[in-house]
Amino acid sequence: MENNVDIESEGGEKMERNASIFEESDMIREPLLLKSRINTTSQIAIVGANVCPIESLDYEIVENDLFKQDWRSRNKVQIFQYVFLKWALVLLIGLATGLVGFFNNLAVENIAGFKLLLTGNLMLKERYAQICIIWHLLHWLVVMWFLQRVLQPSAAGSGIPEVKAYLNGVDAHSILAPSTLFVKIFGSIFGVAAGFVVGKEGPMVHTGACIANLLGQGGSRKYHLTWKWLRYFKNDRDRRDLITCGAAAGVAAAFRAPVGGVLFALEEAASWWRSALLWRTFFTTAVVAVVLKSLIEYCKNEKCGLFGEGGLIMFDINNSVPSYNTIDLLAIILLGVIGGIFGSIYNYLVDKVLRTYSIINEKGPAFRVLLVIIISIITSCCAFGVPWFVKCIPCPDHLKDVCPTKGRSGSYKSFQCPDGHYNDLASLLLTTNDDAIRSLFSPLNTNEFRITCLVFFFFAMYFLGIITYGIAIPSGLFIPVILAGASYGRLAGRLLSPIANLDCGLFALLGAASFLGGTMRMTVSLCVILLELTDNLLMLPLMMLVLLISKTVADYFNKGVYDQIVIMKGLPFLEAHAEPYMRHLVAGDVVSGPLITFSAVEKVGNIVHSLRMTSHNAFPVIDEPPITDAPELCGLVLRSHLLVLLKGKMFTKHRRLSGGETLKWYHAFDFAKAGSGKGLKLEDLEIEMEEMEMFVDLHPITNTSPYTVVETMSLAKAAVAFRELGLRHLCVVPKTPGRPPIVGILTRHDFMPEHVLGLYPHIDAHK
Amino acid sequence: MENNVDIESEGGEKMERNASIFEESDMIREPLLLKSRINTTSQIAIVGANVCPIESLDYEIVENDLFKQDWRSRNKVQIFQYVFLKWALVLLIGLATGLVGFFNNLAVENIAGFKLLLTGNLMLKERYAQICIIWHLLHWLVVMWFLQRVLQPSAAGSGIPEVKAYLNGVDAHSILAPSTLFVKIFGSIFGVAAGFVVGKEGPMVHTGACIANLLGQGGSRKYHLTWKWLRYFKNDRDRRDLITCGAAAGVAAAFRAPVGGVLFALEEAASWWRSALLWRTFFTTAVVAVVLKSLIEYCKNEKCGLFGEGGLIMFDINNSVPSYNTIDLLAIILLGVIGGIFGSIYNYLVDKVLRTYSIINEKGPAFRVLLVIIISIITSCCAFGVPWFVKCIPCPDHLKDVCPTKGRSGSYKSFQCPDGHYNDLASLLLTTNDDAIRSLFSPLNTNEFRITCLVFFFFAMYFLGIITYGIAIPSGLFIPVILAGASYGRLAGRLLSPIANLDCGLFALLGAASFLGGTMRMTVSLCVILLELTDNLLMLPLMMLVLLISKTVADYFNKGVYDQIVIMKGLPFLEAHAEPYMRHLVAGDVVSGPLITFSAVEKVGNIVHSLRMTSHNAFPVIDEPPITDAPELCGLVLRSHLLVLLKGKMFTKHRRLSGGETLKWYHAFDFAKAGSGKGLKLEDLEIEMEEMEMFVDLHPITNTSPYTVVETMSLAKAAVAFRELGLRHLCVVPKTPGRPPIVGILTRHDFMPEHVLGLYPHIDAHK
Repeated sequence: MENNVDIESEGGEKMERNASIFEESDMIREPLLLKSRINTTSQIAIVGANVCPIESLDYEIVENDLFKQDWRSRNKVQIFQYVFLKWALVLLIGLATGLVGFFNNLAVENIAGFKLLLTGNLMLKERYAQICIIWHLLHWLVVMWFLQRVLQPSAAGSGIPEVKAYLNGVDAHSILAPSTLFVKIFGSIFGVAAGFVVGKEGPMVHTGACIANLLGQGGSRKYHLTWKWLRYFKNDRDRRDLITCGAAAGVAAAFRAPVGGVLFALEEAASWWRSALLWRTFFTTAVVAVVLKSLIEYCKNEKCGLFGEGGLIMFDINNSVPSYNTIDLLAIILLGVIGGIFGSIYNYLVDKVLRTYSIINEKGPAFRVLLVIIISIITSCCAFGVPWFVKCIPCPDHLKDVCPTKGRSGSYKSFQCPDGHYNDLASLLLTTNDDAIRSLFSPLNTNEFRITCLVFFFFAMYFLGIITYGIAIPSGLFIPVILAGASYGRLAGRLLSPIANLDCGLFALLGAASFLGGTMRMTVSLCVILLELTDNLLMLPLMMLVLLISKTVADYFNKGVYDQIVIMKGLPFLEAHAEPYMRHLVAGDVVSGPLITFSAVEKVGNIVHSLRMTSHNAFPVIDEPPITDAPELCGLVLRSHLLVLLKGKMFTKHRRLSGGETLKWYHAFDFAKAGSGKGLKLEDLEIEMEEMEMFVDLHPITNTSPYTVVETMSLAKAAVAFRELGLRHLCVVPKTPGRPPIVGILTRHDFMPEHVLGLYPHIDAHK
Repeated sequence: MENNVDIESEGGEKMERNASIFEESDMIREPLLLKSRINTTSQIAIVGANVCPIESLDYEIVENDLFKQDWRSRNKVQIFQYVFLKWALVLLIGLATGLVGFFNNLAVENIAGFKLLLTGNLMLKERYAQICIIWHLLHWLVVMWFLQRVLQPSAAGSGIPEVKAYLNGVDAHSILAPSTLFVKIFGSIFGVAAGFVVGKEGPMVHTGACIANLLGQGGSRKYHLTWKWLRYFKNDRDRRDLITCGAAAGVAAAFRAPVGGVLFALEEAASWWRSALLWRTFFTTAVVAVVLKSLIEYCKNEKCGLFGEGGLIMFDINNSVPSYNTIDLLAIILLGVIGGIFGSIYNYLVDKVLRTYSIINEKGPAFRVLLVIIISIITSCCAFGVPWFVKCIPCPDHLKDVCPTKGRSGSYKSFQCPDGHYNDLASLLLTTNDDAIRSLFSPLNTNEFRITCLVFFFFAMYFLGIITYGIAIPSGLFIPVILAGASYGRLAGRLLSPIANLDCGLFALLGAASFLGGTMRMTVSLCVILLELTDNLLMLPLMMLVLLISKTVADYFNKGVYDQIVIMKGLPFLEAHAEPYMRHLVAGDVVSGPLITFSAVEKVGNIVHSLRMTSHNAFPVIDEPPITDAPELCGLVLRSHLLVLLKGKMFTKHRRLSGGETLKWYHAFDFAKAGSGKGLKLEDLEIEMEEMEMFVDLHPITNTSPYTVVETMSLAKAAVAFRELGLRHLCVVPKTPGRPPIVGILTRHDFMPEHVLGLYPHIDAHK
């Protein structure tokens, strides 16, 4: 990694003590400072198949002399520009995500449709070898893709855990880079079209976030696409807002569910939320809905090849009015309980499989390719092999005109069957995932699928979904879970059909809801997404019931699937609540040391030395005599700001206040945060030996209003403040007078359970 | 007010300085402490027609020796009890609110239906005098009610602003009291049934919140309904959660919109939000939906009198599939713009009318009654007078079986017309509000209502809605706004019908959306509520568009109607963002003084004296020599905790640490917060003269982890911390060593613009 200077690892590496600040006697008098604890929490995370360094994001508003002269507090025209640009950006994000979502859909439907049509034709001519080649050709394409992906590991998997971590304040290398975006879009199209049991929803969320990041940071410098006028958004706060909008737009585009997208971003993705953000997210998803609606309108009458099925509502089951009795209600409660159990087992298995795969992936590219090939063969065998062993079903009399299916879509595939018969398993397996879901939700023909067929399909989807998520193609979890859940629900409906009132298509919907609740553990957003997918408002009370039951049951066993993956990847996610054991500790108990501080007017050599020897991201600045009567905490200075200041070389020969001059030479925008990995680096500086002996006044760039806690503050309350205020650094100040004015800095890693329980292994983690 | 001890007014009244803490020399050395600024922000608010004192709520987790031994950190059984009880309570809230909501509906439909049927019969017999009596009788009943309400002013108005303020941390006297609940329920029923242009939604939200409060604080001590086992919820945090659930349940019950209820609570009502709360709110509204669904099922076949119209979806327009062209889109954009302007004018007029009415109301009960009588006469004249001047319309040929209306409901009222004719204005005015909305949304007959009729109805609803909100019956704003908006939209649809593609019923829906967006300024929740009301998912993109446009336009002119009312009532609402001018001030600039502090082991007499002389809610506790080397801030002690401690009389003769003994005698529950106005009062204490000279150790009840900011902290950042952490007190500590360890305490009132701009009138409020 070339840019490891950018990594935050306060206390993570070997450190030197800046002896000019504290006297030795202080150290001896202060037992707290004697502990030279080091934060051993890992500063790297698994992203895709590789590990890469992570950086915390900084949402704190910097208050210093320079930024007080910022445009925000001065210029009305600039404030108007900012607001206008933000709306324009959000509009662009909506437009782009809508277009990409539509393109994704179009490509998948056309590729998969063409493949399926070809298969059907070749079946008639009994050219099985050619079918086999076509089926595997696409899989090999995906494998090729995967090989390229070795170079771009961040595009693997669902992407939702990474986006969730980003919105919690953790940035892993290249997680939202333009190259990731590119690989994600095409990887997802080929993965889905090839017939892997993967969805396009997770990748769409990641795609939306990437688009938002690309637009928000003013294009990509690497690819020579830069917009200078987007300088207002060069900070982590605005980027977070835009990426939240992008994630919502992704869900909206994937499910054609604008309100569901907003709620998904709110419930699952975002860690901080504001009223203004709700409005902006809503606007983005409205734009996505309008774009999709217009393009779908345009594509009517087969203008877009094989695309054209389904309007804005993907799985319309509006025509079936639910009516249910007590037996139905009891059956639904049982459905929810079992769905919750299956969901938590799903999460457990996904976690285990991911851990196994990450060991395999580490062994080298050959093993990774082998893994994809094996999964590809298993998937093809299931889809194309098993239906051969299934008995043909004669078409029911009243459906003579749709059975067997002519053309691509329809749920009565003939496969190897004679005329007037259909193969029910082939109808589910040899079709796109969307069509399979549509067939399962269909209320028309209760006996369309046999019980054995549903059982096999359920187990195939359940386990294929689990083992496919681990291989590193872009893969969403929603569709596999809906497929498994819908077949489970329809199976239950079939079994209960003698006594139940409810249609088995509605049972399939409730089964899907119970599986989604059991794995994802969302409530309102899933409810609204399912409502927008199916347009059956009258099912709402039942859907809420099933979701609540399955979530409650599953929560008893383990965490939601995205939370599990975040933990597995080693991303330092900050929970909204403090852990119970933190109540028994105080802030001073966990703060890492020793601490490097700067004097308010510091020797250039000292700064350069400290920057080189540590990878800290912020340094406390101390006002010392003669500037003040006694040492006082002036504030915090950021590494990136120090580098910009040093680059400007506004040095003085003697130790004197020169802040006023600095203010004239710099502009607040000079200190704006660059995109991930693009900031100024220490190696870019060229400082002469004589300049090393000169002084620089840090006052203008020091954040004079850092949030502080007293060292005796309960760690639980410090954690709440850290999380609620979205901090990257929290200063710990001494309680008793007469000591150095700062004890240490708490960062995200200091609140991680691994760190705290590593320091105090005797503490009961659950108490 | 008898319990004004409970009021928070740090710095609000005449104060005494506790001279035993600081030496006089300190005061002279410290310029900050010399400013004896006093916070002059009003500590009272208008609630209903009266003014009453307000109290801030305290969401901070107290960390002291006593609470560290709390059940939360010890007993697994108790934690289970807590979780179980919380779910049980939420279930109860859902059940109760669902029942009340249904009862409300039932009563309104029956009373109004009976009245309308009687009117119809008397019309046939031409007994106009009797009609007049019946119409006014109900109004007089409401006036009688209003007279009783003089005793219960908090039940007036919508209630949403009060609930919103409560969830922001402001408790006004008896705003959620059981008596308010009672008056609200019946006041709302009679108000709506009498034919006033008021809705039941706002009152239902308030009702839900009252139910939640009643259940959450363990019943009502005044009415001898108490449940001792609810002691776990005797704190402001848990109460806030429950009341959020109650507010959501209210919306869900009023609109039969469970998801809309959750989103309303999230977007409009709540100021703080957690993931767990989302889930719990969702559960509550699911229960409401199930209760309503069951009761509606039960009421089919006219088992419940005149109730029975409408299923779970109140205004079903699902059967009309929207198809629109470019002209429609342009028309809709214009509709949104004009709707936004009308909405902001509505808000402006409501504000002006409310201010005028509050002057009238202050003049005495006679004036208040007069006001209600005038509004009542105007409303009756509109409803029963104007239709006489309208020309009868012959029934269209294809609607012979429904026109003219037989029975109660239907949109072809004959009124004074001969057979085979109907009176369109009477069809809208002489019916319940719900039926009028249903008629306006109806897509069946474009020319059902004449343009003049729609114009008159629009203006009548618009202005009657405004002038009725001010009189002090429980009155929601949703229904009047929907009525005005729907007639405006239908009017636009009628005018555009030659060129537009869209049905005029759908135009009415979009018109209602534009008015709601223009007055309430919500986005997602309104969208979902309208979706759940009408079950037309395909209208979603258009509805989002209209809402966004009208909100944007209206936001240019003024604030949302609830925000305006909160300001008008003088409730100190904390905004989520800090005002721009706060960036130019520091925390030390606004802190009020002088400060009263206690020594960690303090003389009883001093405490009693300070409690008597001030109405502060919290006092800093200072550890002084010989306990420590130098004075240190030990923490904060709350007035209510001091009163409990004094009542226990664990005093010592000499100044010594006796905390250990105290811990044995008290239990954390002894310090639990009582319901509003029910806590221990200073007058309840009986302390002998000799006990006044004894000492008490405050350590066990001192919150040793208060949040602090340094006096040089930017006021904007202090405000953000105060709001995000949900604080009631924020300690300001000195920056320079050698000073007393605390400068002052910031409270909610210190962040109010009135206070800050009062101290620094030269600051530009917009910069």
